[in-house]
Amino acid sequence: MAATSSTPLLKDELDIVIPTIRNLDFLEMWRPFFQPYHLIIVQDGDPAKVIKVPEGFDYELYNRNDVNRILGPKASCISFKDSACRCFGYMVSKKKYIYTIDDDCFVAKDPSGKDINALEQHIKNLLSPSTPFFFNTLYDPYRDGADFVRGYPFSLREGAPTAVSHGLWLNIPDYDAPTQLVKPRERNNRYVDAVLTIPKGTLFPMCGMNLAFDRELIGPAMYFGLMGDGQPIGRYDDMWAGWCTKVITDHLSLGIKTGLPYIWHSKASNPFVNLKKEYNGIFWQEELIPFFQSVALPKDATTVQKCYLELAKQVKAKLGKVDGYFLKLADAMVTWIEAWDELNPPKGAITTTTKVPAPKSK
Amino acid sequence: MAATSSTPLLKDELDIVIPTIRNLDFLEMWRPFFQPYHLIIVQDGDPAKVIKVPEGFDYELYNRNDVNRILGPKASCISFKDSACRCFGYMVSKKKYIYTIDDDCFVAKDPSGKDINALEQHIKNLLSPSTPFFFNTLYDPYRDGADFVRGYPFSLREGAPTAVSHGLWLNIPDYDAPTQLVKPRERNNRYVDAVLTIPKGTLFPMCGMNLAFDRELIGPAMYFGLMGDGQPIGRYDDMWAGWCTKVITDHLSLGIKTGLPYIWHSKASNPFVNLKKEYNGIFWQEELIPFFQSVALPKDATTVQKCYLELAKQVKAKLGKVDGYFLKLADAMVTWIEAWDELNPPKGAITTTTKVPAPKSK
Repeated sequence: MAATSSTPLLKDELDIVIPTIRNLDFLEMWRPFFQPYHLIIVQDGDPAKVIKVPEGFDYELYNRNDVNRILGPKASCISFKDSACRCFGYMVSKKKYIYTIDDDCFVAKDPSGKDINALEQHIKNLLSPSTPFFFNTLYDPYRDGADFVRGYPFSLREGAPTAVSHGLWLNIPDYDAPTQLVKPRERNNRYVDAVLTIPKGTLFPMCGMNLAFDRELIGPAMYFGLMGDGQPIGRYDDMWAGWCTKVITDHLSLGIKTGLPYIWHSKASNPFVNLKKEYNGIFWQEELIPFFQSVALPKDATTVQKCYLELAKQVKAKLGKVDGYFLKLADAMVTWIEAWDELNPPKGAITTTTKVPAPKSK
Repeated sequence: MAATSSTPLLKDELDIVIPTIRNLDFLEMWRPFFQPYHLIIVQDGDPAKVIKVPEGFDYELYNRNDVNRILGPKASCISFKDSACRCFGYMVSKKKYIYTIDDDCFVAKDPSGKDINALEQHIKNLLSPSTPFFFNTLYDPYRDGADFVRGYPFSLREGAPTAVSHGLWLNIPDYDAPTQLVKPRERNNRYVDAVLTIPKGTLFPMCGMNLAFDRELIGPAMYFGLMGDGQPIGRYDDMWAGWCTKVITDHLSLGIKTGLPYIWHSKASNPFVNLKKEYNGIFWQEELIPFFQSVALPKDATTVQKCYLELAKQVKAKLGKVDGYFLKLADAMVTWIEAWDELNPPKGAITTTTKVPAPKSK
């Protein structure tokens, strides 16, 4: 198969969301794969700064002034000076699928030396079912050349709809600050040729660097929390979204896949800066994981929004005692859902809210 | 690293168990890797047949007459005319570790063309911890060049003791009869360079073709059931052992790894014969999986034996209604534990049972 197929998959059904504080030169390398798609660029930091986007890309760009203008007081739920701001892009997208990537991620090569079309692999992951209810030892059974092995119950072979595709990273692995400090030279050189479903009931660390999801199935759970400016924590935005998302996909019988595709992560962030951002998270996490492992959503929580609001309630009730931050976060979770529903009214609903003003675009 | 290291790992602490009905010519290919170890050969079928073992291997061989003589009336729990008989070898071993392999499995090559020392990889898997409580997206964090990723709780980084290492197969995949019939030409050519822990609470199809385990941690759960001659089912021996084992390792906070190493599985078994063996299992399995998914072991079940006897009780109570076979199987599970304890008295215990008579050996 050619690196770029002649008709790109889901061309009009997928937005690429990129949070950034700099010129997007990294897109040059992605041009063969990304150019057919629409980009949503969420500019973090100083809104006065002009972000250059290479010629020929179709994009809309939102800076903090746009976020404030579009969401009004509800803009408080969108982080500032942290890549967590990317979730604003999920909210304003009108597409069924989202791919989000960091601007320090480049095209990786597979073991044969061929450029990896990460987006194409994510789309394949999302368009084939997941297997959260039973483990298949030959990995993704829907892949060419693979299947369900002996002993896999036939009633489970239809699988579950895939809500999330979590891609990995060659070169700089996604380590926390303590591990970065202890192993400054470690690089991920191992290309593991597999996609697999994270089983039901198992939590995982979801990284936002190279991530795709189905907005219609799980979008409202992809809130990246309150991080960065004015907050006591950073670098837990994607983790928070991942834990909430996993609990909700489990409840709604949806699947999450991890593994292929790889991107090339070019540069390790500063471990000392990271440690400052992370230290509360490293500590709080020890209480968050048992919370998420034991959280139960009620049967009548049949939509992502209902699940998420219920989760916000439980965060307030049970994590408030860990730190006052979680009371603020629980409120922001509710605000996020209100903002989501305002920008994404149910299909066919009569809406009285004003339309989103057009952003800057090419 | 050389294909065979100068001092083989666990040389005096591991037995290789091989069930067979034919001459063991396949051992020639394994000689560089297996010769330092002791073999336990369980001869299935006609005891009058002489099984030839290549020169230079250190082995003991048991045929059905030996099984009957050693176990007396308890021999009823050991299957006949089915590779399930291999679990007799687990019982008579005096070593801490077991590796079991089918006699149609050969040495596979890694992508660089090098012969894979499957046993060495299994030993590495068993000697490093598992991570059943939280998923690590870069796979086995204890492997060289890998670690726990950002967001992995630090309190869980010690992992859990590894009880089982489940290896995979290149060439002929381990498919059930219906899949064999539908995809007669499918071959597994994908070398996935990963080892991972099956998360807690997740069942998997454990294949007995290429399997290692820690006898001291989990041995008594590795009962391969009643299959073959006189039984209404075959080819579910390893599956049954796997489901029981997984429930018990979860309860005892032990880990099970799957992935590397690969062996080369040379020849597909006859799908028509397999279908006859499997059809009851394919049907019953739909009730077995929900049973194993919901089984709860009591807190005071703190040893594998206690867990297994409790499981036998629940099999009798809850699966008897599926088919009378499960009443027989539940009784056989109890017999198996009695026989196990007779041959493996607690260390330091005064035992009045007669010693196991010496088997045929070189």
